Amino acid sequence: MSIVHPDRLLPADPATREIARRLYAEVANATILSPHGHVTPGLLLDDAPFGSPSELLITPDHYVTRVLHSAGVPLDELGRQVDGDPSTVPSETIWRRLAEHWHRFLGTPVRYWMENQLSDLFGITEPLTPANADAIHDSITATLVDPAFRPRALFNRFGIEVLATTDDPADDLAAHRALAEDDTFTGRVLPTWRADRFMTPDQAAWPLALNALAERTGIDCGTYAGLVAALRASRQHFVDHGCTATDTGVADADSTPLDEAEAERIHARGLRGAATVAEATAYRHNLLYRFAEWSCEDGLVMQLHPGVIRNHHRATFERFGADVGADLPDVASFTRPLAPVLQDFGTNPNLHLVLFTVDETAFSREIAPLAGFYPAVYVGAPWWF
Amino acid sequence: MSIVHPDRLLPADPATREIARRLYAEVANATILSPHGHVTPGLLLDDAPFGSPSELLITPDHYVTRVLHSAGVPLDELGRQVDGDPSTVPSETIWRRLAEHWHRFLGTPVRYWMENQLSDLFGITEPLTPANADAIHDSITATLVDPAFRPRALFNRFGIEVLATTDDPADDLAAHRALAEDDTFTGRVLPTWRADRFMTPDQAAWPLALNALAERTGIDCGTYAGLVAALRASRQHFVDHGCTATDTGVADADSTPLDEAEAERIHARGLRGAATVAEATAYRHNLLYRFAEWSCEDGLVMQLHPGVIRNHHRATFERFGADVGADLPDVASFTRPLAPVLQDFGTNPNLHLVLFTVDETAFSREIAPLAGFYPAVYVGAPWWF
Amino acid sequence: MSIVHPDRLLPADPATREIARRLYAEVANATILSPHGHVTPGLLLDDAPFGSPSELLITPDHYVTRVLHSAGVPLDELGRQVDGDPSTVPSETIWRRLAEHWHRFLGTPVRYWMENQLSDLFGITEPLTPANADAIHDSITATLVDPAFRPRALFNRFGIEVLATTDDPADDLAAHRALAEDDTFTGRVLPTWRADRFMTPDQAAWPLALNALAERTGIDCGTYAGLVAALRASRQHFVDHGCTATDTGVADADSTPLDEAEAERIHARGLRGAATVAEATAYRHNLLYRFAEWSCEDGLVMQLHPGVIRNHHRATFERFGADVGADLPDVASFTRPLAPVLQDFGTNPNLHLVLFTVDETAFSREIAPLAGFYPAVYVGAPWWF
Repeated sequence: MSIVHPDRLLPADPATREIARRLYAEVANATILSPHGHVTPGLLLDDAPFGSPSELLITPDHYVTRVLHSAGVPLDELGRQVDGDPSTVPSETIWRRLAEHWHRFLGTPVRYWMENQLSDLFGITEPLTPANADAIHDSITATLVDPAFRPRALFNRFGIEVLATTDDPADDLAAHRALAEDDTFTGRVLPTWRADRFMTPDQAAWPLALNALAERTGIDCGTYAGLVAALRASRQHFVDHGCTATDTGVADADSTPLDEAEAERIHARGLRGAATVAEATAYRHNLLYRFAEWSCEDGLVMQLHPGVIRNHHRATFERFGADVGADLPDVASFTRPLAPVLQDFGTNPNLHLVLFTVDETAFSREIAPLAGFYPAVYVGAPWWF
Repeated sequence: MSIVHPDRLLPADPATREIARRLYAEVANATILSPHGHVTPGLLLDDAPFGSPSELLITPDHYVTRVLHSAGVPLDELGRQVDGDPSTVPSETIWRRLAEHWHRFLGTPVRYWMENQLSDLFGITEPLTPANADAIHDSITATLVDPAFRPRALFNRFGIEVLATTDDPADDLAAHRALAEDDTFTGRVLPTWRADRFMTPDQAAWPLALNALAERTGIDCGTYAGLVAALRASRQHFVDHGCTATDTGVADADSTPLDEAEAERIHARGLRGAATVAEATAYRHNLLYRFAEWSCEDGLVMQLHPGVIRNHHRATFERFGADVGADLPDVASFTRPLAPVLQDFGTNPNLHLVLFTVDETAFSREIAPLAGFYPAVYVGAPWWF
Repeated sequence: MSIVHPDRLLPADPATREIARRLYAEVANATILSPHGHVTPGLLLDDAPFGSPSELLITPDHYVTRVLHSAGVPLDELGRQVDGDPSTVPSETIWRRLAEHWHRFLGTPVRYWMENQLSDLFGITEPLTPANADAIHDSITATLVDPAFRPRALFNRFGIEVLATTDDPADDLAAHRALAEDDTFTGRVLPTWRADRFMTPDQAAWPLALNALAERTGIDCGTYAGLVAALRASRQHFVDHGCTATDTGVADADSTPLDEAEAERIHARGLRGAATVAEATAYRHNLLYRFAEWSCEDGLVMQLHPGVIRNHHRATFERFGADVGADLPDVASFTRPLAPVLQDFGTNPNLHLVLFTVDETAFSREIAPLAGFYPAVYVGAPWWF
């Protein structure tokens, strides 16, 4: 029995609430098609029991850790590894931290979500408090040893029809292949091609990404032409493994192409560690244009998440790495920056460009109008990423 | 009898709905003063029967065609002329296309509007479907031969008190004059001066616009000073024909003036086909400033629609021309870009500057505050254009 | 008895209204902690009776005068001094002007606020009209001689626990000191440090500000280093007088620091009247960074109000001075422009940076996400300033 209110996200007005209930009832038991997620295929391949409650529900969830961080809790006290070293903080300690700060989550989707999990999945029917934190932690721990709480069992129980993961172009997709060939698992898990780290020739880690891709594809990435060939080979490899879509996250949606000579020039400067921010930005804009161009050929749906400044706090990035909650939204624009892509491919029947935003005003101002003219443009769901 | 719900655009909450009903009832039968429309005066002068249902309700309405276009229907299949050649697609075929895609319009003002017309004007009481598309098409066709459905009869039936058209500065306003002198028509139809095409010295069609204006006014437009004199003569001609307002659509509202030498320099470059985008933009900003300056003298109300990128898809523009639904909104700003105009004319009792936007957030952020200080600024209606 | 509706600012839907009533009842009688106001301490020190109704309720309130100004009433007819000379317009005349234009305030917070004052404070139970304007004016005048309507009596009646004023760094805080030492007044009134006028080396009044500060602190402000030392001495003087916070209003939130040599160069150019707009802007951005840096040391809470263009209408500013309603909002951004400050001090436990905006969309897009990661960031109230 759930302790969360069944109407918790529906309108308050009785007339519209009644309509919302009716609409929700029609889809509440639909199977899940997850077009863009962050589950690793290895999780389902290994099907090992989940770790501790904090490892499962707090440490890797940047929606949870960011709020605790903003309340002054350092990330290393929440189980994040520091300078590459794994954490030794006990799960109970981290869980108690969540309980102490639980009031800060009131009214947030994070709390709705967590309460939903605790109640409907783990059968915990009292609200989390510092006083019952240890007992709840132990209860979850006990539940997690139940085979019904292993990844594959949950995959089936949740009614997931398709799960798309997010994968690096240099990934050999061995886990996906093994999972597809595993007769004991019937779920459909597809890779998604995400090449963000190849778009940043001003970053210290960029040459490492090129090397990894070169090793995977056997194509030298020392030139722009080489990188293009390797990325396209990688896309084909993904397509061969069931991939249907790409995903791209960029600070802005500018999609101005470069001529090849200029792209080669910046590529060479990037390899020497000499690319300026302006050059790297132009290089990124060009690759965004190319991704659309390639989608017209290989048919991969193009998901685009612009308008977020990643790793906004450098010291946190250097100490704790990416995906800790420091990706912060900027004003997002689409109509002007996407003009180059839409000029050339906006009526191409092979392009399916899904535009996401965390700037809610962009839906009515730009995304819906673009989708209302261009056959290639689709409106993405209004959610964080 | 109408099949559209009388409360369809009112709030759902019963208390506010009751108030909304009361307010709406007070204005529902008011006469219409249309300050900015796209009816040509010739339509009322000739008073010929309307053409086919598609010619009347689909092909020229870019709100309708854009949604069909976004669903993959090419514009030439919707009756738009291609490369200047008129369409030969039968009205029934186009109408069937609308019926096939009618579900895509659910929840849009376009569908509300069309259902309102079909029901209240044409007496069609069943929803449009592919199955009844031909029957509905025939029913509208039959109705349109009724003299009560000619332009003048509808003008009177709709209770239109004043209708302002949109006219080019090079127009001689002969149709307006004839309409005003026609004793058999008592409606009031006024011209509106719209000079957008004179603001674009980087466009291939710009010299043609100058030539047309020169021919109309007898003033050589080969210089900036000449163009200014011709535009002002044209405004006077409009005022003499009852014009009370201008309208201007620009990508941004920047109103920085140029000194005359710089304006002349860009004008000359434009005539040689050598004006850059930056020069053309500066030239446009200067003309926007001049329009405000002239309004302080001749008293024409100044309507301004910034923030839309016109003809966003070049290939569509080249094939089908303007006004096909490819004018797409950008982020709009007013406070900073309009500073030059407001510095100099914001308290001038002769200026009435009406600011429109499709960026809804600009109302509370910029337009209302500007109107709340400057006597010259008015808040325009929140609608598409 | 109040004539204003007790639910006037609550939701219309009965279910949510009931919840809102319950929540409001819990805080309606709370004491007031005013973190940022525009009362001068001398008002409470002198405790003299207030002047006429217009002097109290119209002339100094730019929310009121701006609407009248937008209706075409010149500011000099509303009691504002012109070119530095005090007004001679009688209070009755100004009050009548308000009554004539009272319908223009319908639906605004200004009217809600004024009706609340007239009804609950002055016991006036009929709506203001031109017909009763004189009678209401006389009634307020009569009430204002009552000792219960002197500043200190109202301070107590309103349940003010703390009142923070807004003060110039060159202020010696004598009034605050005298008020704190006055045994007959027990209210807590704190100064707030606001240094906006020291951030504008391109303004004619900037050297005068430097001179005033130099005189107050005894530190020569002829160099940037001198100004920094004097501002920091001033902050310490404020802290010694109970100050807990600073306030800063800027056109944008860019906080890029300068190296000292460049800051000195622009400072010197400012003193020669030669600083460009670009130089003055860079100088301002640097000082914003310094204010955050200093807050990390002296612990003063940092209130920031970016996104407003002050004194938008130059002619009005030159004739009537600042704060007449011509401070107009621009698009506001936070995530990108505040990066320099947040990179360096965003996790500093001593920084408390409160972000305010009049661009409502910035709350969900930028301010809440920033506050949801950075311990130093707080969400300011959604109100005009």
